[in-house]
Amino acid sequence: MDNSDSEAGRALAITLARHSIHNIQPDLDVLKAGRPIYATNPDSLMRASQVIAIEFQTIAAANNYWRP
Amino acid sequence: MDNSDSEAGRALAITLARHSIHNIQPDLDVLKAGRPIYATNPDSLMRASQVIAIEFQTIAAANNYWRP
Amino acid sequence: MDNSDSEAGRALAITLARHSIHNIQPDLDVLKAGRPIYATNPDSLMRASQVIAIEFQTIAAANNYWRP
Amino acid sequence: MDNSDSEAGRALAITLARHSIHNIQPDLDVLKAGRPIYATNPDSLMRASQVIAIEFQTIAAANNYWRP
Amino acid sequence: MDNSDSEAGRALAITLARHSIHNIQPDLDVLKAGRPIYATNPDSLMRASQVIAIEFQTIAAANNYWRP
Amino acid sequence: MDNSDSEAGRALAITLARHSIHNIQPDLDVLKAGRPIYATNPDSLMRASQVIAIEFQTIAAANNYWRP
Repeated sequence: MDNSDSEAGRALAITLARHSIHNIQPDLDVLKAGRPIYATNPDSLMRASQVIAIEFQTIAAANNYWRP
Repeated sequence: MDNSDSEAGRALAITLARHSIHNIQPDLDVLKAGRPIYATNPDSLMRASQVIAIEFQTIAAANNYWRP
Repeated sequence: MDNSDSEAGRALAITLARHSIHNIQPDLDVLKAGRPIYATNPDSLMRASQVIAIEFQTIAAANNYWRP
Repeated sequence: MDNSDSEAGRALAITLARHSIHNIQPDLDVLKAGRPIYATNPDSLMRASQVIAIEFQTIAAANNYWRP
Repeated sequence: MDNSDSEAGRALAITLARHSIHNIQPDLDVLKAGRPIYATNPDSLMRASQVIAIEFQTIAAANNYWRP
Repeated sequence: MDNSDSEAGRALAITLARHSIHNIQPDLDVLKAGRPIYATNPDSLMRASQVIAIEFQTIAAANNYWRP
């Protein structure tokens, strides 16, 4: 699971998480204003990485874990 | 999993999360009053996106990950 | 998964979450006193909807996602 | 999944969660002192019900969802 | 799932969670200094029990739920 | 699941979590500045260990739990 296929899966997980946030808050200026707050806060970074981890679970299962 | 089928699944995930919240707080005015608070708070947005991610796990499994 | 069967599953998810809370705090007056606090707080509503989402995962799997 | 078998599963989920907490904090007096704090706080009750929901996922899967 | 096999699984879940924390914070004195803080805080105890519950999900699945 | 194979899986789980955080906050100086804050805070350590636990679920499933 440690190859270029799964890297695309990680990128998709980040995209899905971003789309959720854009859906709730479509105003990009508001999102940009929040970025310095959460991107320098370890707990916020952990929260974000948890969402990515959950989305990745789904993507990895959907791709049958990129098994050959 | 990156097509129009899964986009419908994402939309359903958001709907399910909203229905849960409406079930607990049916007063739309209260929900509207809370919106400016959480929609501008990065941690709240992350929380919301986590719920969507969990609901999506269920929907994606239910649809067998939209495999052809 | 978007039909009356899964609606019953959502209702059961809410019931299971409520039963957990009643198990820990059986005094309904205390629960009622807490309601105005969490039902008007977006983060609390998100927390509650996350528990419902997790319970629903189990119920949906148990019902084999209401596949025909 | 809505019968006496799954009720035993819910009870076991609560037991497992309690055992985890006792493992970390074996002093029952400390746990009793904390009880009035978390049992009257909606967010703490939600946190506890989330742990129960996660433990129940495992128990339900282990019992093959009490399918006949 | 309620036997000595699964008890070993619970113990392993606690070990895995501890190893994660040691990996991030290898200084045992810092960890010991934090213990009185989180071990007397109900929300921290709940957080810890949630991590154990998630690790246990993996261990239980890995052991095919100790089915005979 | 308690061998050198799964240890590599644990290491990968930590790597995946770190990559998520680096993706959101690529400035290593900011990350280093945050480290003393979260690495001495029990709740932050628990949050981090939860993300590792979730990533490990995916890795363990992908490796079919290192079954022989």
